Amino acid sequence: MKYKISFVGAGNVAWHLAQALETAGHHIREVFSQDIANAELLCSHLYDATAKENLDFSESDAQILFIAVADDALESILSNLIVPQFMIVAHTSGTKPISIFEDNATDCAYNYGVFYPLQTFSKQKPVDFSEIPFCIEANDTLILDILQNIAKTVSKNVLPISSKERQILHVAAVFACNFVNHLLAISKNILDVNHLDFKMLVPLIKETIHKALLESPENVQTGPAKRKDFKTIEKHLQFLSKENDTNNNSNNMHKEIYKMLTESIVKGF
Amino acid sequence: MKYKISFVGAGNVAWHLAQALETAGHHIREVFSQDIANAELLCSHLYDATAKENLDFSESDAQILFIAVADDALESILSNLIVPQFMIVAHTSGTKPISIFEDNATDCAYNYGVFYPLQTFSKQKPVDFSEIPFCIEANDTLILDILQNIAKTVSKNVLPISSKERQILHVAAVFACNFVNHLLAISKNILDVNHLDFKMLVPLIKETIHKALLESPENVQTGPAKRKDFKTIEKHLQFLSKENDTNNNSNNMHKEIYKMLTESIVKGF
Repeated sequence: MKYKISFVGAGNVAWHLAQALETAGHHIREVFSQDIANAELLCSHLYDATAKENLDFSESDAQILFIAVADDALESILSNLIVPQFMIVAHTSGTKPISIFEDNATDCAYNYGVFYPLQTFSKQKPVDFSEIPFCIEANDTLILDILQNIAKTVSKNVLPISSKERQILHVAAVFACNFVNHLLAISKNILDVNHLDFKMLVPLIKETIHKALLESPENVQTGPAKRKDFKTIEKHLQFLSKENDTNNNSNNMHKEIYKMLTESIVKGF
Repeated sequence: MKYKISFVGAGNVAWHLAQALETAGHHIREVFSQDIANAELLCSHLYDATAKENLDFSESDAQILFIAVADDALESILSNLIVPQFMIVAHTSGTKPISIFEDNATDCAYNYGVFYPLQTFSKQKPVDFSEIPFCIEANDTLILDILQNIAKTVSKNVLPISSKERQILHVAAVFACNFVNHLLAISKNILDVNHLDFKMLVPLIKETIHKALLESPENVQTGPAKRKDFKTIEKHLQFLSKENDTNNNSNNMHKEIYKMLTESIVKGF
């Protein structure tokens, strides 16, 4: 079944999701954004959507309203939203619990849910939705079915996930993505300061990730910490001490991070 | 120019390097391994190489001898090695300095160098050498040229790299590979314990790495630490505290690691 869908938000998620849903045959009716120019820009990439200047959707004929805004903005959006009773409202946040609807919508009379694509988006970069896991949650099993069916029109990977599970996924993603990226940044910083090219590490990084995702990362751990090579570890710590003294770009935590992650690997799981 | 080359070692590096060099037209003459069966196995994949039972290469007609053994074994191998004066000996270690030759070879009369492919190898997995950076060092500029020319027959990415630079590359690789893999292991552990599938994070991890390597990782940092979202950080720390209490598989350092890496991201470079 194809749905009439509107969006609150015209950022990275709304940008890709609206276009993917339209390609899958749904009708995108309206787009609201704090900055109407953003809504208009997204509408110009859609077939017949209208940019909307306010959060009053009482005259809308959309059956589904996706709220794809920054986490900080979600509460205030929900407090100010006016929607007809038949409309299903779903947010796309990875962190906000489903209870945010009851907590912020005065006399929440509509059905609601969470429609969270577990991926990072940039406007300029095309997205292949088919592999992206969609974490779906709803106030009612019928609504859960509807939201899952919509997600299945763009992805092969749709799962009912509770707010608590979504929080755990988010913590795990902080380790596997945010922290991983930061370690790559530290690695690049160490090389930059010493006039060595981070590109030299790229084949090794790619192969490391490839192996970790192919098997279990725990089973493919290598390096001085894994083989308890304390002589090399000591040399590396000496180098990082000196680096701390001379590298003005560094936040001086490289050595502490090296020590802690080494200790964690040595201890094992 | 094509060379006659012998190997000490029949492990992962020797396994792939010997075959790649043969494919590039060089002649692999002998392979030594502590376990002769390993040497014989590698020889069975080569055109006319002979498995060797001792480290006396005085009768060998090879011009180059690559020592591709575990770092711990290198010193003792060099102490026991007998080679003719015309032979160039190069080790393939990422961590051992070039001075190891003078330090361990009695009256080192031969020329020597380092021939380090910056990649991780597994025997079962085919390797594309063409993109792998080769870090080359030698006791003499003529020898450096020869080793670089040999590396160029298998890779487009050959660079003269000093022992000091190699050590810095190794520290940077510990952050970008060993530690990154460990964070992926922690992430998987958190999900395993909560009966969630690590596979759900794979598209996000792949995209994170893709973005980090395309641009500068520092410029694409996202997450609660980057946006100083202390409410979410506090919730995550509470979750990790509880997890520490109940997760017997964990080494109980997840919370400390979360705190330290968050602090490092918040501080910025």
